[in-house]
Amino acid sequence: MQPLFLYNTLSRKKEEFKALNPPYVGMYVCGPTVYSDVHLGNCRTFISFDIIYRYLSHLGYKVRYVRNITDAGHLESDGDVGEDKISKKAKLNQLEPMEIVQTYTVDFRKVMEQFNALPPTIEPTATGHIIEQQEIAREIINKGLAYEVNGTVYFDVEKFAQSHNYTALTGRKLEELLENTRDLDGQQDKRGRLDFALWIKAKPEHLMQWSSEWGKGFPGWHIECSAMSTKYLGEQFDIHGGGMDLQATHHTNEIAQNIAYCGKQPCNYWLHTNMLTVSGQKMSKSLGNSFLPHELFSGKHPLLDKGYGPMAVRFFMMQTHYRSTLDFSNEALQASEKGFERLMESYQTLQNLTPGATSGEDIKALENKCYEAMNDDFNTPVLIAHLFDAARIINSVNDKKVSLIQADIVLLKKMYQNFLFDVMGLKVEAENTKTTEVLDKVIHLVLDLRNKAKAEKNFSLSDEIRDKLTNSGVQVKDTKEGSSWKI
Amino acid sequence: MQPLFLYNTLSRKKEEFKALNPPYVGMYVCGPTVYSDVHLGNCRTFISFDIIYRYLSHLGYKVRYVRNITDAGHLESDGDVGEDKISKKAKLNQLEPMEIVQTYTVDFRKVMEQFNALPPTIEPTATGHIIEQQEIAREIINKGLAYEVNGTVYFDVEKFAQSHNYTALTGRKLEELLENTRDLDGQQDKRGRLDFALWIKAKPEHLMQWSSEWGKGFPGWHIECSAMSTKYLGEQFDIHGGGMDLQATHHTNEIAQNIAYCGKQPCNYWLHTNMLTVSGQKMSKSLGNSFLPHELFSGKHPLLDKGYGPMAVRFFMMQTHYRSTLDFSNEALQASEKGFERLMESYQTLQNLTPGATSGEDIKALENKCYEAMNDDFNTPVLIAHLFDAARIINSVNDKKVSLIQADIVLLKKMYQNFLFDVMGLKVEAENTKTTEVLDKVIHLVLDLRNKAKAEKNFSLSDEIRDKLTNSGVQVKDTKEGSSWKI
Repeated sequence: MQPLFLYNTLSRKKEEFKALNPPYVGMYVCGPTVYSDVHLGNCRTFISFDIIYRYLSHLGYKVRYVRNITDAGHLESDGDVGEDKISKKAKLNQLEPMEIVQTYTVDFRKVMEQFNALPPTIEPTATGHIIEQQEIAREIINKGLAYEVNGTVYFDVEKFAQSHNYTALTGRKLEELLENTRDLDGQQDKRGRLDFALWIKAKPEHLMQWSSEWGKGFPGWHIECSAMSTKYLGEQFDIHGGGMDLQATHHTNEIAQNIAYCGKQPCNYWLHTNMLTVSGQKMSKSLGNSFLPHELFSGKHPLLDKGYGPMAVRFFMMQTHYRSTLDFSNEALQASEKGFERLMESYQTLQNLTPGATSGEDIKALENKCYEAMNDDFNTPVLIAHLFDAARIINSVNDKKVSLIQADIVLLKKMYQNFLFDVMGLKVEAENTKTTEVLDKVIHLVLDLRNKAKAEKNFSLSDEIRDKLTNSGVQVKDTKEGSSWKI
Repeated sequence: MQPLFLYNTLSRKKEEFKALNPPYVGMYVCGPTVYSDVHLGNCRTFISFDIIYRYLSHLGYKVRYVRNITDAGHLESDGDVGEDKISKKAKLNQLEPMEIVQTYTVDFRKVMEQFNALPPTIEPTATGHIIEQQEIAREIINKGLAYEVNGTVYFDVEKFAQSHNYTALTGRKLEELLENTRDLDGQQDKRGRLDFALWIKAKPEHLMQWSSEWGKGFPGWHIECSAMSTKYLGEQFDIHGGGMDLQATHHTNEIAQNIAYCGKQPCNYWLHTNMLTVSGQKMSKSLGNSFLPHELFSGKHPLLDKGYGPMAVRFFMMQTHYRSTLDFSNEALQASEKGFERLMESYQTLQNLTPGATSGEDIKALENKCYEAMNDDFNTPVLIAHLFDAARIINSVNDKKVSLIQADIVLLKKMYQNFLFDVMGLKVEAENTKTTEVLDKVIHLVLDLRNKAKAEKNFSLSDEIRDKLTNSGVQVKDTKEGSSWKI
């Protein structure tokens, strides 16, 4: 079997994965900005890295998985001038960014739990690492690659680029970048138009600000990830992940910061997940085709025919490789939902298979194919195709068309446990909903029998059925439109 | 109706609650230290303040409820000397305190969710406020009430006590405290034996340390709460809460810090929850009578006869006033469980009451009594007694012994919604378990009908029932002992 290969954005090719310090693996993934509901595209990114985390753990690596929470934002208050004096005195009636942070962090964690994504092993916040970010900015100034102007600290990109490849991650030419960057982005103090801020002077109305040697301010956009990855994973670690939209600016600047700070490429493998589309169009609020996770689960959105359970959506996402565009449509979601149910049903069937004297299928080879799929840059769509093949075999054995020896049935169970549950992180969906559905069907069966008894004028039986239903805790309401019930 | 009164530890009496800046209320509660499983006593504290938070919100206050996470601890590494060189190089194989923090924070949030405790509006961490803690220490030094020795900053208690009442919260005498404090607690640099650290110099092996003007170190035990309450609620806010064990040292020192820092008592009302006992004995690990929340839910502990659902435990806790000792025993838990079920059943009965022409009970007076109970320092046991009275009335109406007009039935429904669900935060326990129980009963009803048909040799009917059950997703297995089924 071939070893694990993964596509490295930095080299633009698939490379064999070699951990820096086996069995340890350090993985850093850029987490959500918690100032609004989590975007479905972000969910895809975090689910993709959840599977990578799970697979590396399955292979025996001890993974320290750091995913940050970006809670240092740029909120400004309206500077409630002219309010009544009591209100002005009350700190409580001001907008408090950390309340917004709490609301959306709680919501984000809930959505991740619904998707059955494991929590990262460390979940650090940007506001929790102000000192560390200041230290990096200070050190980069000391190295001559950053400068302070009027309380703001800028990274000197052109100077950095004299001795390092600033655009390594995108492969673009620095000259082109310079030509295409029109102006100073409103920051007149910058020396070069590509320079970016490590620390930003805060205006008085800025709600989030901290003391520093450069005056009151707040960290720049990119420096938090350099600070937190270095603190928890060291100056060099294995894997850095994030959405593709972070590659050109955020990750490019993160690499520059790390090299300037400690003279090293921060990590060996850069992995990027691709974007979402809806029926072929980019998902965006302005196009009106952007739905939130809870809208997808409930089906309450004009573009959705119905709701889709979190596990069906997770399965759906995995039917596209993480580096390909993922297209949402009702047809594709419904097809996935059916496929997921088929796999889960085959798992049930698998539990009751009768072993035979010989095996008509090569299960060991099938298991190898599953590993090969995952070892080929975490190719979940191919893995799923192999699991469908397993489902086909299970159904054939159940229909007595093929036979399998006991050891192969055990191996199939192990395959399902490993790949469907442990690695892909799927689980039986909403047990409660299913139980209620079955209960509904069974109660209607009972009501049919009662109606039959009534039609046959067997009133003692129809009364007995009604009483027994009541004793079971079911309340039946008969109307002209039919019967409804509740517990 | 009397206004809200609450018992203020600071004045040692019940006082009328007057918000500093109505309708805003600022409430700070000392949260968990996330270095081990959350203790049931802590759960009681947080559930008590959850009810206070819910009741204040119910009364129309806009509550900013800040509950911190203490994640800055005192872990030291073993200084893995003599390891092989590769391991020594790997940051990843070191103990990382933030991994421990993440494990127990995730677990703590899960337990709070099981208890249906609302998340606080802000949940700040100690490590997220190092700069703010340093600023307070610096300012107290500037005020002459703290001093630095060898990289550690101490609060000068005796100097503070010359102009302020250091022991206001406990009412103890400073002289007695001085006499009873034997030595310098291993801290030879302290000037006075009651002095406590605001900032502590870190030994090299200390895993959590930050730069400061006094060298590398970490914050003292008490300063985080002064920093976070001041930052999010202002220099003066309404309510500060915590467990009674925090009163004598942590909260006493917190008040001293705040007064030294900004010259003001931090808050108007200090609320403290009492401790837990088990069958009359203090709950402690060494006595072997300490169980964790999940052990209480599952019943997997030698002292527990069975498991108790989180809602039954929550209800049980509320049957004792938060300022009284709460005693755990199987008998008391089982009695509470029954009482909780009785209340929930009466809520079901309430939905189907038939209104009469007159009312034989004064529901409005009963509602007033509920408010009076809560307005008397959140007296939940008395509130519960009134709700049991409501349940008695509901059952009498259901049994046609008393009649109520429609408006009173509506008022009862509002009372249940307000007090049982919104304020006490109770909810229907484990819906899924209940659905499965009902399904089991209904399926056995169907199987009885099938057996009857068989006995009457009506095989077309018995076959039809079997097929319809299968189509409903129910698999029936007939054995000599009877029939079992699964979905």
